[in-house]
Amino acid sequence: MRLSAIGYGSGDLVERDDVPLTDVPELRQRCANLWLDVAGFGDVGQLQQLAEMFGLHRLALEDVLNLHQRAKVEDYGTHEFLLLRMVDVENNEVSEQFAMFVGPGFLITFQERSGDCFGMVRQRLRDAQGQMQKRGTDYLAYALLDAVVDAYFPALERLGTRLEDAEERILAGGSGSEAVRDLYAVRRCLLDLRRAVWPLREATSALLRGETKHFGAEIHPYLRDVHDHVVQLLELFESYREISSSLLELHLSMVNQRLNEVMKVLTIIATIFIPLTFVVGVYGMNFKWMPELDVWWCYPAVLVAMAGIAGAMVWWFRRKHWL
Amino acid sequence: MRLSAIGYGSGDLVERDDVPLTDVPELRQRCANLWLDVAGFGDVGQLQQLAEMFGLHRLALEDVLNLHQRAKVEDYGTHEFLLLRMVDVENNEVSEQFAMFVGPGFLITFQERSGDCFGMVRQRLRDAQGQMQKRGTDYLAYALLDAVVDAYFPALERLGTRLEDAEERILAGGSGSEAVRDLYAVRRCLLDLRRAVWPLREATSALLRGETKHFGAEIHPYLRDVHDHVVQLLELFESYREISSSLLELHLSMVNQRLNEVMKVLTIIATIFIPLTFVVGVYGMNFKWMPELDVWWCYPAVLVAMAGIAGAMVWWFRRKHWL
Amino acid sequence: MRLSAIGYGSGDLVERDDVPLTDVPELRQRCANLWLDVAGFGDVGQLQQLAEMFGLHRLALEDVLNLHQRAKVEDYGTHEFLLLRMVDVENNEVSEQFAMFVGPGFLITFQERSGDCFGMVRQRLRDAQGQMQKRGTDYLAYALLDAVVDAYFPALERLGTRLEDAEERILAGGSGSEAVRDLYAVRRCLLDLRRAVWPLREATSALLRGETKHFGAEIHPYLRDVHDHVVQLLELFESYREISSSLLELHLSMVNQRLNEVMKVLTIIATIFIPLTFVVGVYGMNFKWMPELDVWWCYPAVLVAMAGIAGAMVWWFRRKHWL
Amino acid sequence: MRLSAIGYGSGDLVERDDVPLTDVPELRQRCANLWLDVAGFGDVGQLQQLAEMFGLHRLALEDVLNLHQRAKVEDYGTHEFLLLRMVDVENNEVSEQFAMFVGPGFLITFQERSGDCFGMVRQRLRDAQGQMQKRGTDYLAYALLDAVVDAYFPALERLGTRLEDAEERILAGGSGSEAVRDLYAVRRCLLDLRRAVWPLREATSALLRGETKHFGAEIHPYLRDVHDHVVQLLELFESYREISSSLLELHLSMVNQRLNEVMKVLTIIATIFIPLTFVVGVYGMNFKWMPELDVWWCYPAVLVAMAGIAGAMVWWFRRKHWL
Amino acid sequence: MRLSAIGYGSGDLVERDDVPLTDVPELRQRCANLWLDVAGFGDVGQLQQLAEMFGLHRLALEDVLNLHQRAKVEDYGTHEFLLLRMVDVENNEVSEQFAMFVGPGFLITFQERSGDCFGMVRQRLRDAQGQMQKRGTDYLAYALLDAVVDAYFPALERLGTRLEDAEERILAGGSGSEAVRDLYAVRRCLLDLRRAVWPLREATSALLRGETKHFGAEIHPYLRDVHDHVVQLLELFESYREISSSLLELHLSMVNQRLNEVMKVLTIIATIFIPLTFVVGVYGMNFKWMPELDVWWCYPAVLVAMAGIAGAMVWWFRRKHWL
Repeated sequence: MRLSAIGYGSGDLVERDDVPLTDVPELRQRCANLWLDVAGFGDVGQLQQLAEMFGLHRLALEDVLNLHQRAKVEDYGTHEFLLLRMVDVENNEVSEQFAMFVGPGFLITFQERSGDCFGMVRQRLRDAQGQMQKRGTDYLAYALLDAVVDAYFPALERLGTRLEDAEERILAGGSGSEAVRDLYAVRRCLLDLRRAVWPLREATSALLRGETKHFGAEIHPYLRDVHDHVVQLLELFESYREISSSLLELHLSMVNQRLNEVMKVLTIIATIFIPLTFVVGVYGMNFKWMPELDVWWCYPAVLVAMAGIAGAMVWWFRRKHWL
Repeated sequence: MRLSAIGYGSGDLVERDDVPLTDVPELRQRCANLWLDVAGFGDVGQLQQLAEMFGLHRLALEDVLNLHQRAKVEDYGTHEFLLLRMVDVENNEVSEQFAMFVGPGFLITFQERSGDCFGMVRQRLRDAQGQMQKRGTDYLAYALLDAVVDAYFPALERLGTRLEDAEERILAGGSGSEAVRDLYAVRRCLLDLRRAVWPLREATSALLRGETKHFGAEIHPYLRDVHDHVVQLLELFESYREISSSLLELHLSMVNQRLNEVMKVLTIIATIFIPLTFVVGVYGMNFKWMPELDVWWCYPAVLVAMAGIAGAMVWWFRRKHWL
Repeated sequence: MRLSAIGYGSGDLVERDDVPLTDVPELRQRCANLWLDVAGFGDVGQLQQLAEMFGLHRLALEDVLNLHQRAKVEDYGTHEFLLLRMVDVENNEVSEQFAMFVGPGFLITFQERSGDCFGMVRQRLRDAQGQMQKRGTDYLAYALLDAVVDAYFPALERLGTRLEDAEERILAGGSGSEAVRDLYAVRRCLLDLRRAVWPLREATSALLRGETKHFGAEIHPYLRDVHDHVVQLLELFESYREISSSLLELHLSMVNQRLNEVMKVLTIIATIFIPLTFVVGVYGMNFKWMPELDVWWCYPAVLVAMAGIAGAMVWWFRRKHWL
Repeated sequence: MRLSAIGYGSGDLVERDDVPLTDVPELRQRCANLWLDVAGFGDVGQLQQLAEMFGLHRLALEDVLNLHQRAKVEDYGTHEFLLLRMVDVENNEVSEQFAMFVGPGFLITFQERSGDCFGMVRQRLRDAQGQMQKRGTDYLAYALLDAVVDAYFPALERLGTRLEDAEERILAGGSGSEAVRDLYAVRRCLLDLRRAVWPLREATSALLRGETKHFGAEIHPYLRDVHDHVVQLLELFESYREISSSLLELHLSMVNQRLNEVMKVLTIIATIFIPLTFVVGVYGMNFKWMPELDVWWCYPAVLVAMAGIAGAMVWWFRRKHWL
Repeated sequence: MRLSAIGYGSGDLVERDDVPLTDVPELRQRCANLWLDVAGFGDVGQLQQLAEMFGLHRLALEDVLNLHQRAKVEDYGTHEFLLLRMVDVENNEVSEQFAMFVGPGFLITFQERSGDCFGMVRQRLRDAQGQMQKRGTDYLAYALLDAVVDAYFPALERLGTRLEDAEERILAGGSGSEAVRDLYAVRRCLLDLRRAVWPLREATSALLRGETKHFGAEIHPYLRDVHDHVVQLLELFESYREISSSLLELHLSMVNQRLNEVMKVLTIIATIFIPLTFVVGVYGMNFKWMPELDVWWCYPAVLVAMAGIAGAMVWWFRRKHWL
């Protein structure tokens, strides 16, 4: 368990890494606003100590430790609890669980590993002239929430690129076997990402309905912005899912088309030559008494007849629009 | 950044192009109603100056600059913010983002390029006897909103024509390869357009619920009209999507049908001739001791037998309804 | 533009065809309730005159003239505006737009052509003892609304008959090509009809919620009846759509089945005879040194061997359940 | 029209069949609670007389006579009107329409034919110690409603058995042609039943919301029970529909699988023997100058070469995992 | 019927198995909180005695005895009734019905068999220092509810593993026949489980809305937790269902792909060799007058010509991208 703290709001910025748990009360007194970031949940005892210091609810703490939870926002009276799922842009995977406790003057965040998609937020916090130092922990919580949500966009963009690759390959008419596997992989990614984002819609709209008293009214437009981004993400998911379905249908239809074409060629070749082969087979029989064989013009006559049969068949296929 | 201004409502119409930012305050004082149209977002500094003059919210301005936003209506107290997506009828594409700020006595619009689907609106504004000069900026905002929404109809009509073309080609029973690609292209267009229009439903119904104080009660029937058009657009999208699905199913079913027919012909030809070819092959063998070969009536007998086999098979296919 | 008027409610019934516009005010004064039916929108000027007489809203009049609108109910304070789409039972098509203005003592209806699905309503109106003469224009409006909605039922019944025809043909196992095209045509009809009826659900439920003051409380049970019919129509649409989908799936599955059967026959014939044809080919070669050819029992031995191969194959196919 | 009456609640039970209409007023006075059951709607005049006696609403009576209505619950002030659709368990069909009027002290039911799924209810009513005699007509109405709803369960069970039969046949891998037709028939039944039950959800939930004053508060838990059964029915419909879809997909996928297998066998046989047949054809040609024919080891060499070709192909197919 | 009782809340814990019904009143008086667990419903008389002791509602008792009910929460004034369905993790089946009556100071549970997924709850109850002894029966009811819901997760995990197995097998490209059957089996399991969990959503959200007075406010966060788990289960069901659909589509598409490949090979082989076989057949005819046969260079010329034909075809297939 690594604890890092950033205190602000009382003139100067206090930034410390690897804070021992015993220094926390002092830091809390010294700073108007305190952000504690906990990475790694190895030591349950220490977590419970921390929870007691800030009066965090037992159930919320269980949710923090219990991975694979749904994203949610819960109001525990003395503090607000937000649970989110972060995306790993590299692998288009939903990776860590991220928890926030927002209370008067404090913000405690929990990550599984030392995450780093909040670099920008820390940078803005260090800026003495910036908005962030002047505002409370609710604005900081919004900034972190926003960073988590916005990290989904590049992940989605990568999926979009993969979809476009698949589209190109399918329209080029190749065998498409990899394209289909890729479409399947993209779909699984979309499902996973969507499952992570979906509950956020409800959660952010609960924040918007003003059901929580730890987010001030002036934060409202910002939360609406986050909610908008979540809805946009969900619409993009839906859109990508429909595109991938359409692509699969297109692919199947083109494969069918090609199979049809192949079968036609086979049928035409076979239908023309099988009867002809039968005819030449007839005159290859070794019967003693086959009068045709002795007449000199029969050989050219048979050749001409076969050409006629072939021609008639080609004409018939033309009429049937198979050629 | 090109700024053009139209002032009205105080007797005469003031229309100026390429207004310098410094002239704006004077224009605002002189005219009861002022429409400022900003094209191009090159100079962020100037935009911020403009925003400060009219007290536009920082978040809304960010949304203006940030392309690829969802359409939305947001109330910032001192002004109303509307964000829309315009359609490019030529290419059936969603093209520019279009933003409006409606406040007391002013309407500021932001376009990426010098757009021109508002020619009609400007024309009606210049008409001294028309409704528009007599009403406030909320009516003007409605007129622009209406123009943006109505521009989707010709785009949809073009898609409808393409669907009808595809239907014709599929019913004509050609190879259908292009028809399928075209259906796919139409579907992607529909998805893109729908994604642009979908949030407008919510937005216009928010306007209708009277949640905004910058649109007067007498504008209400007009907004209801726009909302109706949005709903009609969405129903058309849905309808076209179902038609394209049905067409694809029809196409697949007809391709299947044709494949079936082709396979039947192949099977019939092969099934009739393969056994006959075997029979003639038997009498083509070079064995010394093949008594049949020496009997004079064996050759015609074999021919008759083969005709009999072929006839029996044709009869059997008839009974199976394959012929 | 042809104007016909029916006045009632003040003892006697006044019925006149081709009324000049100038006679309208007099008629209005003379009759407690006046029904004006306008057919054809050729003369916009006259329409506007009429609108001014009764104080009809400009936007509603635009909707009347603008074809291809959604069905809707709108309250304009002094009058109620209803817009409906009528069905052409003959062709299962949505044909005309039908508009009604209901106000105190008057009902104005607009049709594109002289329609005639209201014959029954007129008949009931002429009946001096009937309900209709005793009630106001709201009841008359309900009767017309009911007539328009009920005209969809025979159209749907015709589609149901066509579905049953298609079902019969598909289950009979014919080539099904026409059945598929017919299913597609039925689906398009269903889509068009549904699109016309769908908004009526909303509209009639708005009437039911009592949001309009021009329909009296005693009309409420009648409106509930119309709403019920609309909902029943929509459920029938949905039901027919699912039946047509199921039929298409059934058809595809049966075509697949048949293709499979055909392929099996081909495979069995080919698999039995191709190796045998190879064998007879071997003994048809002209090599000088082929000792088998000179032995007298080799010919019957080869024949027996081939019979054995064929028998083994048939046995193998039996075991694989292909025969 | 056959009228049977059961009066109860005033000490003793009065049960009479084929009551003449003129006796009804006397019966009504004598019994605290009166259940009139009307079977057959032949005589409209008598129906209207009955309706006037009890003050039944004209529209409700029209609904009774008009078959093919949606199930519904309607409140007409002085009485409650319930319309239901009964199921014919034998044929899994929705058969009759069943209507109830519940008012203070009376319950009038209308059936097309003398139905008999209420045998149990009558039995319980005759039991002098039972709940039913002690309670009002609302409880009796609940009992009839419950009997109608519960009759759907055995019908659904029969469909479930048919689905299981189809599943067994499909998994056994037979030709599946009947299984597919049976699935289709089950689906149509499900659609019809669902269409009959679906509006009941709304209707019973309206009863639950306490919108009707003719059902006492103590009936509430019983109505909740009926509502629960209706919801359970709808969930079962949905479940069966999904199972039938899954079964069809399974079937199609297995047919495809089998077709694939058949094609592979054909391809392997053809691919091995077609080149070999060509080779033996070459040495069956009658050219004078074919030096190979005169060399004694050429015949065995050709045989060995052909065996080699066949072996190579088998090896190749193995590598491609076709064998 | 086996009755076991645990009393707590008055200092010491009373735990007894096989309690005779006559001891229950005494136990109830002695303990502040009493949990009675009834396993097996053999003796209806005894059940009714028990119901009378605690004033349980007749309808609720019927629901307990009547298996195959939907999960629900019902408020009967003096007590709360919860009906749940337990999962059998071993077989991924919904097994028993589980009913709870929560009232002031008592909790009565009904199981079909002596279940054992509550071992953990009993353990926590025996812990004298634990939360459970300090709280009322509502907390105990929550704990049981939580145990029932959480038992679905391992069942779902097993289904997830089976899906992954199927995915692996399908992507490996085997014949996939078992994979498809397995997918079908997984889908049926998902449907059954989902049908059991689905009504719980409604039920727990009714508890959350605080519609029941027997669950204290301090239990609220715990109930929210259970509701969250139910929603998460439903989202997982949905997710798994979509994955299984995608897998089936992937499988079908790959089977199609493979069929296509097989057909191509067949077509290429046949198309190359059928014409060649015809050619050699021609020169195998036994006509007397075939001048080509006597010319010495004709044999090599024919061989070369056939090689040319084969080469041309291969080139043509290359151009068509079939090779």
